[in-house]
Order: sequence, then structure tokens, then C-alpha cells
Amino acid sequence: MPGITAYAGISEVGSVKKGECVFISAASGAVGQLAGQFAKLLGCYVVGSAGSQEKVDLLKNKLGFDDAFNYKEELDLDAALKRYFPEGIDFYFEQVGGKMLDAVLLNMKVHGRIAICGMISQYNITHPEALENLLHIAFKRLTITGFTYRDHHHLYPNLLETVLPYIRENRVVYVEDIVEGLEKGPEALVGLFSGRNFGKQIVKVAGK
Amino acid sequence: MPGITAYAGISEVGSVKKGECVFISAASGAVGQLAGQFAKLLGCYVVGSAGSQEKVDLLKNKLGFDDAFNYKEELDLDAALKRYFPEGIDFYFEQVGGKMLDAVLLNMKVHGRIAICGMISQYNITHPEALENLLHIAFKRLTITGFTYRDHHHLYPNLLETVLPYIRENRVVYVEDIVEGLEKGPEALVGLFSGRNFGKQIVKVAGK
Repeated sequence: MPGITAYAGISEVGSVKKGECVFISAASGAVGQLAGQFAKLLGCYVVGSAGSQEKVDLLKNKLGFDDAFNYKEELDLDAALKRYFPEGIDFYFEQVGGKMLDAVLLNMKVHGRIAICGMISQYNITHPEALENLLHIAFKRLTITGFTYRDHHHLYPNLLETVLPYIRENRVVYVEDIVEGLEKGPEALVGLFSGRNFGKQIVKVAGK
Repeated sequence: MPGITAYAGISEVGSVKKGECVFISAASGAVGQLAGQFAKLLGCYVVGSAGSQEKVDLLKNKLGFDDAFNYKEELDLDAALKRYFPEGIDFYFEQVGGKMLDAVLLNMKVHGRIAICGMISQYNITHPEALENLLHIAFKRLTITGFTYRDHHHLYPNLLETVLPYIRENRVVYVEDIVEGLEKGPEALVGLFSGRNFGKQIVKVAGK
């Protein structure tokens, strides 16, 4: 599921092309880490955001992102994005919403595209955060597309054909976050919403 | 300019098709009245919102909309949209933003499209209104596209070819709001933001 989501977002929904500037939020998550690597394979400049220095290091050193930053340490997300994308963002892979989306809208290029597969920052709050910059959708003629892997099963053969050779060559890697024991399940679930996990959060109930 | 904007939004950005359910905000404005009539020519069910009973009557009786409502008299825009679109909206022509967009997001069909050429309710306020329903972009896999007529000049020959015969037959009509005298200019400009005008606001400085 993360594979198809990432592949659909980059290749079909976003129509990402060589040389474009790509930003990925929740970049160390199950989908984000693959989306970033797929964009790198296409020859893009790729920056990700994550919630700890450890994740930022992994994005840069293990997953091959051009750069990454810890959004929790940025007082001004707009300024952070301007640092990494001085000429703007062509494509944003959105998984966070709220203040991150608001800052991204300020930093999109004209005719930029945003693919939204989630907005995890908005799921557990009573009132969604107000966005100041929705007007930029009109000003910059942006295209925003919500999507889910469920509409893109037809891409599965393409995904395998394209990505399996890279996985065998270790040019695409995948990191999972495995906790042992069913009793850790609730904590692992809660951890998803505070960004504690790195990659797909798996609860291993029993060994083989 | 209103003609190209309306035509681009309906035919190219929205790819509106026969039989679809179309909602147009600021429907009695210069762009909205044409967008609604173009959607009707395509065989759509078209409802518009406007800010007075007089405008609602004109939309229904003179411009051929299937229905229209006065948004200022609706305490619950979500309920109003559910009344006119019990099965949801395929395409929304957005010119208003704020609470109207928020209510529309709740009422879009899965895979619905929104074309945004403006958000007039948000231009003159210090802080934009918070939207509660942006998550529906992901849930319903919506596509939202900002656009301006400036990107669609190539449609001009198509527009003339398609629409001129209908104008000659009086099947497409156009209403303008003309005030006389330059001294009325400021008042007319302010009126745009309170929705006082019907159709294109024109200040006639001198007769021929």
C-alpha cells in the first residue's frame, strides 16, 4: 500500500518530471520515504521534512534525499522552505496539512501541483488550523489533487517492473518501525500521531 | 475577459460534461452568469448562489439556471447545498472562498472538481476564515485547480465559434451593471466587495 501510494502520487497524480523541485512532508513515513526515492530516481531535487534530527539524518544519509529539515525546530516554516527552495516548489507530496500546507502554498511555483493523500496534523484536533494562503491556489494557478492508492491498483505491474530492479540493487531502501508484542499496539498507534515512528509502524504479535 | 474565464473554467479546467451537477457561486457576477449558461448549454443541472432575491430571480428567470438561492438568507450553507444537490456536486465554479468553499467541500461527489478563479470573500479581511473541511480533498479525491483567463487565450476562437450563435439567438444573455459618472467610481468599486452589482460593474464616464 505505501508503495502504490508513493508511486501513484509521484508518477500519475503529480506527473513529476526530471529536474523538478519536489518537497515531501512526513518524509520519513512509510509513504514519504518511497515517494522521495521515486522522485530521486526521476532526477528531481528532493527535500523532505520530518520530526527529529535522527529522521533528518536518515533521509539524507540512507534514503538519498538531497536535503531534509526538522519541522519541529523551524520557527518559521515559510523561511525554511525559502531556504531549501529559493526558486519555489514544483510538486508537493502532502501528508501533513495545517501550517505546513499553508507555508507550502506561499512557496509553490506558478502552475505547481500538490498531491494530497493525507493531513495527519488535522485528524485529532477539534478545529482544523486556519490557512492564510488558500488564495495562492488562484494566484499561482495551482492544481491540488486528493488521491488514495485504492484508485491506482492498475499501477501495480508498473510499480513492480520499475522498482524491483532498484530494490535488488539496493538503490531503493525501505525502513520499517517494528515493535514486539500486541501490548505495544496502542502506544504504537498513538505514536503515529506524534510522529514517533520511522517508516511503516508494525506491531509484531508473534514470531514465525 | 469574463467570457474567456467562464468558458475556460467550464470547458477546459472543469471538463464539464452533459448531465453533471454544477454549482456556481457569485453566479450573478460577470463571470458566473456566463459560466452557468455555458454549463446549461452542455446539458448540466446548474444552481447558482447570489446575494439578493432580485439576483436569484434573474438567475432563474432570465439566465436559465435550474435553481438559485440567496446565500445571505441561509443560516446553514451545508444544508442549503444538500437541498439543491442531494446527490452531491460534480463541479464547483469557485469565486467566493471562505464559508462557501467549506460547505461545498462537504457536498462534493467523490472525484469532483473545483475550479478557482477567485475568492472575493477573502480579499479584504485581515485573517482568512478557517476551513473545517479541507480533509475532504483527500477523502473524496477531489481535484482543485486555480486558473486565470490569461492562461487560456488560445480558447478565444472556440469561444466565439461556440457562443456567438447562441448570443444571436438570445439563448445566451449578458447583464451589466452600469453607473453613470466618474464620481460614482469609488462607490461602484466598494460595491463589488459587498455584492451590490449584478454582472460586470461598469462606470460610464461619458456618452458617445
